[in-house]
Amino acid sequence: MINAQIVGATGYGGLGMTELLLRHPHIEITSLLATQDVGKRIGDVYPHLRGFCELAIGEANADTVGRDADIVVFATPDGVGQSYARGLLERGLKVIDYSGDFRFGSPEQYDEYARRHPSIGGRAHSSPELLAESVYGIPELNRERLQGARLVGNPGCFAVAMVLGLAPAAARGLIEPDGLIVDGKTGISGAGKKPGPTYHFPAANESVSPYRIGTHQHDVETGMAIGALMEAPVELAFVPHLVPVTRGIICTIYARLREELPAEAVRAAYEGFYAEEPFVRVLPPGVSPGLASVRGSNFCDLSVTVLPAQRRLIVASSIDNLLKGQAGVALQNMNLMLGFPETTGLERVPMYP
Amino acid sequence: MINAQIVGATGYGGLGMTELLLRHPHIEITSLLATQDVGKRIGDVYPHLRGFCELAIGEANADTVGRDADIVVFATPDGVGQSYARGLLERGLKVIDYSGDFRFGSPEQYDEYARRHPSIGGRAHSSPELLAESVYGIPELNRERLQGARLVGNPGCFAVAMVLGLAPAAARGLIEPDGLIVDGKTGISGAGKKPGPTYHFPAANESVSPYRIGTHQHDVETGMAIGALMEAPVELAFVPHLVPVTRGIICTIYARLREELPAEAVRAAYEGFYAEEPFVRVLPPGVSPGLASVRGSNFCDLSVTVLPAQRRLIVASSIDNLLKGQAGVALQNMNLMLGFPETTGLERVPMYP
Amino acid sequence: MINAQIVGATGYGGLGMTELLLRHPHIEITSLLATQDVGKRIGDVYPHLRGFCELAIGEANADTVGRDADIVVFATPDGVGQSYARGLLERGLKVIDYSGDFRFGSPEQYDEYARRHPSIGGRAHSSPELLAESVYGIPELNRERLQGARLVGNPGCFAVAMVLGLAPAAARGLIEPDGLIVDGKTGISGAGKKPGPTYHFPAANESVSPYRIGTHQHDVETGMAIGALMEAPVELAFVPHLVPVTRGIICTIYARLREELPAEAVRAAYEGFYAEEPFVRVLPPGVSPGLASVRGSNFCDLSVTVLPAQRRLIVASSIDNLLKGQAGVALQNMNLMLGFPETTGLERVPMYP
Amino acid sequence: MINAQIVGATGYGGLGMTELLLRHPHIEITSLLATQDVGKRIGDVYPHLRGFCELAIGEANADTVGRDADIVVFATPDGVGQSYARGLLERGLKVIDYSGDFRFGSPEQYDEYARRHPSIGGRAHSSPELLAESVYGIPELNRERLQGARLVGNPGCFAVAMVLGLAPAAARGLIEPDGLIVDGKTGISGAGKKPGPTYHFPAANESVSPYRIGTHQHDVETGMAIGALMEAPVELAFVPHLVPVTRGIICTIYARLREELPAEAVRAAYEGFYAEEPFVRVLPPGVSPGLASVRGSNFCDLSVTVLPAQRRLIVASSIDNLLKGQAGVALQNMNLMLGFPETTGLERVPMYP
Repeated sequence: MINAQIVGATGYGGLGMTELLLRHPHIEITSLLATQDVGKRIGDVYPHLRGFCELAIGEANADTVGRDADIVVFATPDGVGQSYARGLLERGLKVIDYSGDFRFGSPEQYDEYARRHPSIGGRAHSSPELLAESVYGIPELNRERLQGARLVGNPGCFAVAMVLGLAPAAARGLIEPDGLIVDGKTGISGAGKKPGPTYHFPAANESVSPYRIGTHQHDVETGMAIGALMEAPVELAFVPHLVPVTRGIICTIYARLREELPAEAVRAAYEGFYAEEPFVRVLPPGVSPGLASVRGSNFCDLSVTVLPAQRRLIVASSIDNLLKGQAGVALQNMNLMLGFPETTGLERVPMYP
Repeated sequence: MINAQIVGATGYGGLGMTELLLRHPHIEITSLLATQDVGKRIGDVYPHLRGFCELAIGEANADTVGRDADIVVFATPDGVGQSYARGLLERGLKVIDYSGDFRFGSPEQYDEYARRHPSIGGRAHSSPELLAESVYGIPELNRERLQGARLVGNPGCFAVAMVLGLAPAAARGLIEPDGLIVDGKTGISGAGKKPGPTYHFPAANESVSPYRIGTHQHDVETGMAIGALMEAPVELAFVPHLVPVTRGIICTIYARLREELPAEAVRAAYEGFYAEEPFVRVLPPGVSPGLASVRGSNFCDLSVTVLPAQRRLIVASSIDNLLKGQAGVALQNMNLMLGFPETTGLERVPMYP
Repeated sequence: MINAQIVGATGYGGLGMTELLLRHPHIEITSLLATQDVGKRIGDVYPHLRGFCELAIGEANADTVGRDADIVVFATPDGVGQSYARGLLERGLKVIDYSGDFRFGSPEQYDEYARRHPSIGGRAHSSPELLAESVYGIPELNRERLQGARLVGNPGCFAVAMVLGLAPAAARGLIEPDGLIVDGKTGISGAGKKPGPTYHFPAANESVSPYRIGTHQHDVETGMAIGALMEAPVELAFVPHLVPVTRGIICTIYARLREELPAEAVRAAYEGFYAEEPFVRVLPPGVSPGLASVRGSNFCDLSVTVLPAQRRLIVASSIDNLLKGQAGVALQNMNLMLGFPETTGLERVPMYP
Repeated sequence: MINAQIVGATGYGGLGMTELLLRHPHIEITSLLATQDVGKRIGDVYPHLRGFCELAIGEANADTVGRDADIVVFATPDGVGQSYARGLLERGLKVIDYSGDFRFGSPEQYDEYARRHPSIGGRAHSSPELLAESVYGIPELNRERLQGARLVGNPGCFAVAMVLGLAPAAARGLIEPDGLIVDGKTGISGAGKKPGPTYHFPAANESVSPYRIGTHQHDVETGMAIGALMEAPVELAFVPHLVPVTRGIICTIYARLREELPAEAVRAAYEGFYAEEPFVRVLPPGVSPGLASVRGSNFCDLSVTVLPAQRRLIVASSIDNLLKGQAGVALQNMNLMLGFPETTGLERVPMYP
């Protein structure tokens, strides 16, 4: 049995990991740490967990982080994981971090992201020497490096949907690297557990609103991942929108094909690329990748449409933002890091309706 | 491995059972029958099931019902199960029925229900001789009779919430049998998969509306179950309301205590009554049984409040109408019928948020 | 032209009054005061008001309250209006207050309310001598006293729905004074504009949850109003529930008839009682008073059902909580206070769907 | 007083016109026609209208259409208006039609639309000689031709949002004519009143799903309107999405600027273009055009963003699909056709929250 510690256990990201690990046959949660609700049992913070977990929230600090753990999950804001990671690795622990701290392979790339991120404000990475070792946690692209890895940067929720939606076309050289458009729609849980005016029910309900138009930091991450596949810099405009659902992200992706290809050829490329993937489903023509079909699961559902006269490729990519976009992909990465079958604990049927 | 057949597989009730059995270690679905979408694969009817089940929908008729099955689940409207049950029992199969066909112990009780039910219109039961054997499928009340039973009438969704909310007070003789009020609120999935003007999104969204005020048939079923516990006829007024959520039922129950009791005493009676129950949680004071805390699970969450000066007991009872209110309690019953541990396949953490 | 000042202009209650007065032919807003967003234009706080109102928010204090106004609307929490009212009346202004400050006719009644209200905590009224003059602002009961009144206590949102649902039966002596049950459901806007964990979209959406079971202060107010009509103390249990809609309150009311009456007789009593009322609609049998039918209007829709064998009366009462439950009834009261036709500025067709 | 007849009065489009005309000082509804609910009073079909309108639904046929009317509003599917229009014009009536029947200036343009529209299937126009006279009903582009016009084709709901979002950039020559992308999101009321599996509450709620990817007929209409402004054919890819709100459309529009312009210059062009428009609001930087800010009003709110390095223009355009997208713009057009001030009956403050 592997011992796991979750830091940031009272947010939605930590909660998602707790829910998953409660059912994992090989990983046990040994401690839940946070900076809020310290001393409360998790079932008092989240009543739906009553009867499942008797752990109390411990305070996250230098003494507690890493204690009695084989692996530490940082479900924390940017900057926290990078302040602990080196020490934990030196003690022989493994680390996975939900923030942008370890998604980038070089300080230069991290800096580009940090300049864009509103809460980082361009601050330099505190352990830049770890970036070369850390692995970007998208198993469909980096499976081999993730196997046995010590340090993983879990991807951003929007980035998962974007990267999986673009990767086959990028890797097979089907699309032009510039003029990429991604129109994203996210459920409100993507903003986390903390209340705010924008997420107040009467404000968010019955509305749809774009935010951070063209300035969201997830496009940096996506641009680098796709640029690496294309071996060229990509030009990407990304507009996220808040939609009044609790869970789910759908990204509608617009790209220009290099040459006029029939829809069947492009769809076949997608099907081939993901043929062995347990959590990506390329939908047949006429089936729409609605959020409802992936809710509660680790799937990414993709539809592939081509407008031949425009050489226009349109991919719609849906995930549950709290699972494939966060805790689910994290567990998929952890299974790879720890040598367990990749799908362990993740074979969940989506919940419909 | 037990072979199960689901009749009515394309409705939400059949779907719920399919989703549960796909993960059950001892029961296998051998056929899915329906009267619609015959010939389609279930993953084409419900895209979220792609990759989980390759079965095609067969036509439900005299030839197909019961074929290659040890147990048949009728997720069908009133009247269907009763037309097949005798033949299936004679062939040695077990039967569980979602409708009111087998919830009642005598033709007289069934007739009272049938008079109330709008789609039955008072028609007599076609196999009244089976009613004495059939068991009403609320495990918390009828566990012993359910163990090994051949024929079970799965309870109504509202009735589950009402009966579990009233049973401890009724069984312990704490409340008066008349003046019971139940104010129910149900998500729209309770109306099933078939579209209609009332369930059209623009009509149901941003509204709450009572319906069938004082005339809903689930109060007959509840009245009988509670009356049996009290050994007296009960007087019950029930008003269901549609609320704009997909899943969930909450019943707020108002009863008069026989004598002035402190809240602690009443709550202790509830805790004692359900102390060994795996799927009923009596919440501590101050925790509200919101629908969100049971969503996606087989739990019934109960809060118990007393207004001493009024001798007023107020119980709020929440379930996921598609699980504890339908497919979940059905699987709980099936586990008992088949001799499996009662919680098999049902240890699901609620999905929050 | 009458000059009106709104204190508490940045909350939903002040906003509702602003929206109404912008279209009123005889009342003009001369100033908007608040303690937040001071200095901003109202269209910068609420973008939907761009182009309608150029006023900036002034700071509410002893200097500003009442300035250049004929009438002051306190859309403020309990305690604010009572600290200003005497001075304003002495200067010849009229005052309407949204809180409980002036809903009660005596210090004793106010004290009972104040003990119950969580944010007052039993503190005594600071201007108790004004209570005898102040008028409880339900026009259907107190129209004559409201005409020309100087000081009005606008009713609580739930109380409007309850009082209008019970008044005809109480006034005509049809029901018993004890055993009254009110099951209330409110949209989230009833909690105001301030974000909080309970009103965070992912927490409130897809849930229904009871709160303050049997302890909500609006039952004091309702009990007094109905008790006055019955000339007897009433026993009332009230349970409010949060439902995931933005606007609307529906109260489902359960009472015992003194004698067995046919539904037609009771409904006729309601129709007679409200025959001349511009904003109460008694619905015919079979029409459900859903929230959607009153949204955006000043109507209260009532359905009247009788279960004869139980002598049970069930009334469902729906309002838009921000209009008939707050700003709409306030304007109705203001029209009466100021001598304008009662419906001026309120003849709004509900917005459906 | 002008006499108006509404054909298709029981759908959401006819309903919207009824609600607006009930408050119009110069236009009176003399008859409501439909093919469903004939004989019922409109307040029995739509309970929110009780007390506002006593008209009963008449049957729409050759005898009734146009009777006692000065203007006929066809809130009907494609094909109905074109079968009546010539006769009505000959009798001296005016006609406005909600469908695509009169949006196009030539049979060739209509044919292109008709080929795309799923329910027309390429059928030829039955009165092609009227197309040269008919006016496309976007007042911001065609005000002069609409003044006094006899025959107007009301625009498609998505087209209103797209055309208003693109028109300034197109008219001023700021953008390239190809590579236009429009990502649209519509509330479910856009699908009309008729229930269907896609609009069933449990299916539509908590989901977002694209549909008719790249094949929706409103892009034909938009392409022609924008192409006329640019004097060049435009290449446009449009993907509509269903979002779980009742009312509202937001289109996020992506275009390539011809040259690198600062955001201020482009926004100034938009502000100049719409400086005199009563119903278009160009928002300042940082204000997001959420659906909630236009709900219940005739406004189109626009945000204008530029990513200079990409020469990328991003415009977000929000409307209430049932008002500015349908009945509201229709009344704006009717006011122009009839010589009334354009804003009569439309000065509605948006309903927020």
